[in-house]
Amino acid sequence: MQFHHHGYVSGDPRVQDAAGTGIDRPDDLPDEMDVLIVGSGPAGMLLAAQLSQFPDVTTRIIERRDGRLPLGQADGIQPRSVETFQAFGFAERITAEAFNIAYMNFWAPDPEDPANIIRITRTEDYAFKISEFPHLIVNQARVLDYFAEAALHGPGRIAPDYGVEFAGLRVHDDGEHPVEVHVRYVAGDRAGEERTVRAKYVAGCDGARSGVREAIGRRHVGDVSLHAWGVMDVLVNTDFPDWRTKCAITSTAGNILHIPREGGYLCRMYIDLGEITEDDHHRVRQTPVEAVIRKANEILHPYTLDVRQVAWHSVYEVGHRVTDRFDDADADADADADGGRSPRVFLTGDACHTHSAKAGQGMNVSMQDGFNLGWKLGHVLTGLSSPALLETYSAERQPVAQQLIDFDREWASLMARKPEEISDPQELATYYLATAEFPSGFMTQYGPSAVVADASHQDLAPGFPIGKRFKSVEVVRVCDGNVVHLGHHARADGRWRIYAFADGAVAGDATSALAAWAEWATSPESPITRHTPIGADSDAVFDVKAVFQQRFEEVDLARVPRLFLPESGPLGLTDWEKVYAAGPSAWTEADIFAERGLSREGVVVVVRPDQYVAAILPLTATDELSAFLGGALLPQRVV
Amino acid sequence: MQFHHHGYVSGDPRVQDAAGTGIDRPDDLPDEMDVLIVGSGPAGMLLAAQLSQFPDVTTRIIERRDGRLPLGQADGIQPRSVETFQAFGFAERITAEAFNIAYMNFWAPDPEDPANIIRITRTEDYAFKISEFPHLIVNQARVLDYFAEAALHGPGRIAPDYGVEFAGLRVHDDGEHPVEVHVRYVAGDRAGEERTVRAKYVAGCDGARSGVREAIGRRHVGDVSLHAWGVMDVLVNTDFPDWRTKCAITSTAGNILHIPREGGYLCRMYIDLGEITEDDHHRVRQTPVEAVIRKANEILHPYTLDVRQVAWHSVYEVGHRVTDRFDDADADADADADGGRSPRVFLTGDACHTHSAKAGQGMNVSMQDGFNLGWKLGHVLTGLSSPALLETYSAERQPVAQQLIDFDREWASLMARKPEEISDPQELATYYLATAEFPSGFMTQYGPSAVVADASHQDLAPGFPIGKRFKSVEVVRVCDGNVVHLGHHARADGRWRIYAFADGAVAGDATSALAAWAEWATSPESPITRHTPIGADSDAVFDVKAVFQQRFEEVDLARVPRLFLPESGPLGLTDWEKVYAAGPSAWTEADIFAERGLSREGVVVVVRPDQYVAAILPLTATDELSAFLGGALLPQRVV
Repeated sequence: MQFHHHGYVSGDPRVQDAAGTGIDRPDDLPDEMDVLIVGSGPAGMLLAAQLSQFPDVTTRIIERRDGRLPLGQADGIQPRSVETFQAFGFAERITAEAFNIAYMNFWAPDPEDPANIIRITRTEDYAFKISEFPHLIVNQARVLDYFAEAALHGPGRIAPDYGVEFAGLRVHDDGEHPVEVHVRYVAGDRAGEERTVRAKYVAGCDGARSGVREAIGRRHVGDVSLHAWGVMDVLVNTDFPDWRTKCAITSTAGNILHIPREGGYLCRMYIDLGEITEDDHHRVRQTPVEAVIRKANEILHPYTLDVRQVAWHSVYEVGHRVTDRFDDADADADADADGGRSPRVFLTGDACHTHSAKAGQGMNVSMQDGFNLGWKLGHVLTGLSSPALLETYSAERQPVAQQLIDFDREWASLMARKPEEISDPQELATYYLATAEFPSGFMTQYGPSAVVADASHQDLAPGFPIGKRFKSVEVVRVCDGNVVHLGHHARADGRWRIYAFADGAVAGDATSALAAWAEWATSPESPITRHTPIGADSDAVFDVKAVFQQRFEEVDLARVPRLFLPESGPLGLTDWEKVYAAGPSAWTEADIFAERGLSREGVVVVVRPDQYVAAILPLTATDELSAFLGGALLPQRVV
Repeated sequence: MQFHHHGYVSGDPRVQDAAGTGIDRPDDLPDEMDVLIVGSGPAGMLLAAQLSQFPDVTTRIIERRDGRLPLGQADGIQPRSVETFQAFGFAERITAEAFNIAYMNFWAPDPEDPANIIRITRTEDYAFKISEFPHLIVNQARVLDYFAEAALHGPGRIAPDYGVEFAGLRVHDDGEHPVEVHVRYVAGDRAGEERTVRAKYVAGCDGARSGVREAIGRRHVGDVSLHAWGVMDVLVNTDFPDWRTKCAITSTAGNILHIPREGGYLCRMYIDLGEITEDDHHRVRQTPVEAVIRKANEILHPYTLDVRQVAWHSVYEVGHRVTDRFDDADADADADADGGRSPRVFLTGDACHTHSAKAGQGMNVSMQDGFNLGWKLGHVLTGLSSPALLETYSAERQPVAQQLIDFDREWASLMARKPEEISDPQELATYYLATAEFPSGFMTQYGPSAVVADASHQDLAPGFPIGKRFKSVEVVRVCDGNVVHLGHHARADGRWRIYAFADGAVAGDATSALAAWAEWATSPESPITRHTPIGADSDAVFDVKAVFQQRFEEVDLARVPRLFLPESGPLGLTDWEKVYAAGPSAWTEADIFAERGLSREGVVVVVRPDQYVAAILPLTATDELSAFLGGALLPQRVV
């Protein structure tokens, strides 16, 4: 964590100085704004936290509820989300209060007495094999609390406008603020009042029954199955020995997905209530919790549950729906040609994809929607990029949602099978492990676009697949010898990261490929110069770091190109945290060159503000880097 | 972190339910209270945080300042303090914002050109070799913020009474509240007003010029040397390559102890200003910061400092003083005999030991003063222990302070030597490493007393030295397979920990030594029963845990004695987090039995509420355990 950069800070360094629209931010929803976020769920709150890092953008977030969410339904946090929390500055805090899943156990009928269940197998949780972060269980309400804090403590000082309901919108063809939004106060002093406000962009983060989706006429395609599940968060005494372990339980009486939760006592149970008839018309949703508990006891036989408190419960039929497109742009029109057709309204999260909760994906995918959209809005609204960038949002996220629906449909149907349909009791465990990358959140790979380069130089860094999230490795910070995760320095501050992995020459050798690249990068012609606004810090848009192959003791900071030791901020202070060396060292075994297969000739890795690898290039391919960044960003100065 | 134990918690689980005096706690200082803490520095605030866990005790803390400390002088945090932060629930948060010291480098005159300094050697910081926690640098003000939060969020809801100054005290021979304290309001609405309040006990945490020390007539013994140092926290640009590494610099122009600080930019420099004359009369303290900066530049030659901001600076002569006794008891009288002579007033921190800042010890030792005193006051005031327990405070802490003074005197004089006095340039590095256990905070070993047993069974657990702090090891939590640090479950909640390390029998074997011990421990005759108040949870005073030798998968919870799966709280919920297995497992290499040399016949390790090992006993030595606990605690029921 870096601070004191603008002078000594006495208090909590997580509270950044207010700037731009964050200074004297009005309490009331203004008449005009840049971005209006509808809904304060995981996607909306992440988006607010991200846009708080763009304080020149006026961002408001309206929420029908009159305050904080007291009881969230989602609770599964995949490692990719914990990585994201790290970027927003609260991974260590939420991890400390969350439940860490170490194992998933599988139970099935005892072959010798099928009325009883027995433990068939244990599987180690996959998280640590594919991320340095764990697989957590924590209440959605707490996730929202932390994002709310990040939004409020960012320079934009964004806080939700509670008690304000979305009531419709219309996108005009012209004007600075073409989206006319109708809102209604439903709580507080102004309850009952209706207003029209105008925004440049609207993000519909308003859940499965999204009014924004309806207003832009997008179709939510899919179906609801005729299979019902009960779900409950319960405080229980029991003789079931795996009460604190995640379990998939298949029994002659039905199935349970069992998930221990944070705090050591509470558990979440998904209880299979079986098939319902075509003419049920959602009557199953009236099933009393007592019936769900009774069913759970039947499934768990010979073990029993003594429920002491039900914190929350629900009954639902599994549904799978995905919206055909995640924005209001006309897919058939040429957005660039008429200028007025680029998207103005976006859908995120449950507003555009809904599915069962059992694969623990919903909140996670929703947050990545917000992470994908946030920096793009920030870039366009601050003039760093053209509005065409916003077309990549739907193009990148809609296929992810479709994959999720497909995965969840398969997982949900496997979970709902009867014992007689299962030939191999290990099959579910095998499927679980084989597909682990997906529910961890790491399968997402964006295709080529203005912000994802082609793979022609992928062989220089096979461990950083283009279009996938940048997978961090430990490196040694040269200035102090501390072992740090290279990727953890990349906070969700809206900046691009450019990692210049050095060639094998002695650090500081003026004839090295790295030195030549650094000289080019600081020249007036370089895209790093060209896309950085005049008057801004030299690293305001691109955070450029060097990683040397030598041991850190052998890197002489006096000879490292000044690009990697920039002076910035009002005091013009040197930033010492951009020069790294590959391990091993006294405190790590890792050698990032070996672990990611990086070319010993050096390689440049460009990473987007949402942590996805954008480009891999040789140090010598300066023209290609210029061309790629020129496609993603607008020039900020005349060269 | 355990919560939801009294029912579902929606918000921050670090905020405990208010209880006892924490419910409707009056804003104003009352006329009578159990404990009055004078001063809100590290010792006082830790004490408040600890006593907040004893909400039946009325605790107030007065502070002359009108609010939070904006700029603390101390910044070095030894691993023992980070362990302590873990127990108070904020280690991961403060670590995230602190600077981690990985190396200490030593600089000396270049033999070929003594006008220039060169790096002589690097030493790896010792912290991780003796603790799972690092050696941190973070502002004292932030440490106080976190303890203030712990005090406020504990059941006692304790917040400092700011703007109230200590003005004197008198200890009466009788009455429920024998300490009469005179206070003065110096800020706020009542500024100028004087009051007399009464307390059962007073803790003088009021710094080097302690009024409490003066009021009880204790002598502060020691001297001030004729050697002056300048100290400054500065934001600097420099070509000195180790600016972000802790360094001891010996130069022909003098010496510097250089300490990088949190946030990546700020550094603390201690600059040797050399000998002063006998008739200086503290005039050296008027040295302007420009002179200190000039001196620093001379010492660093050929490197230079370009100071951009001075956050804080001071000039001082090194002094070493320690108070003869840390309470008001009459050392010559027999406290037990006349009953009225047991201590009523205590001194902590700088009020009873002052020394140079350069060994980074002051704040750390002060906090351990508070940790030692807190639970003892809590025990006596809730009737768990007799007032005689309080005599162990001075007996345990005064020798620690004396050791500290001796260590610091040696370290400060080594640091102040001229190059010509140094025969071996490596000597300082060698001394630094050889004595590492002391500045880490782990040398403290309390001698036998009512709360530290004799060492007759030490051979059963040589890795847990009696009287030293319990050094944690990773174990596997049986209920969920998570690898956790056994010691981290021991929060600073005022409870004793009893770890029953099992004999080698199969877990749950009813004929095992562990099973016999557990049966005895739950009997009416056992000290665990006898010292637990009627109506309290069975683990309210003793948190008893089992650690098995088998792999966790082999421990059948259904057969573990119920002592280790107690039901407690208003819902009578089972606590699943008291049964552990030694590793190794998929997630750890550690085997606690091997790492601590624990007897394979089993062993009982008793740990005090302040994390010091109190007793080591065989599972069969039930009479000895009864006798030991009977000496430390009062019976709570008639058997």
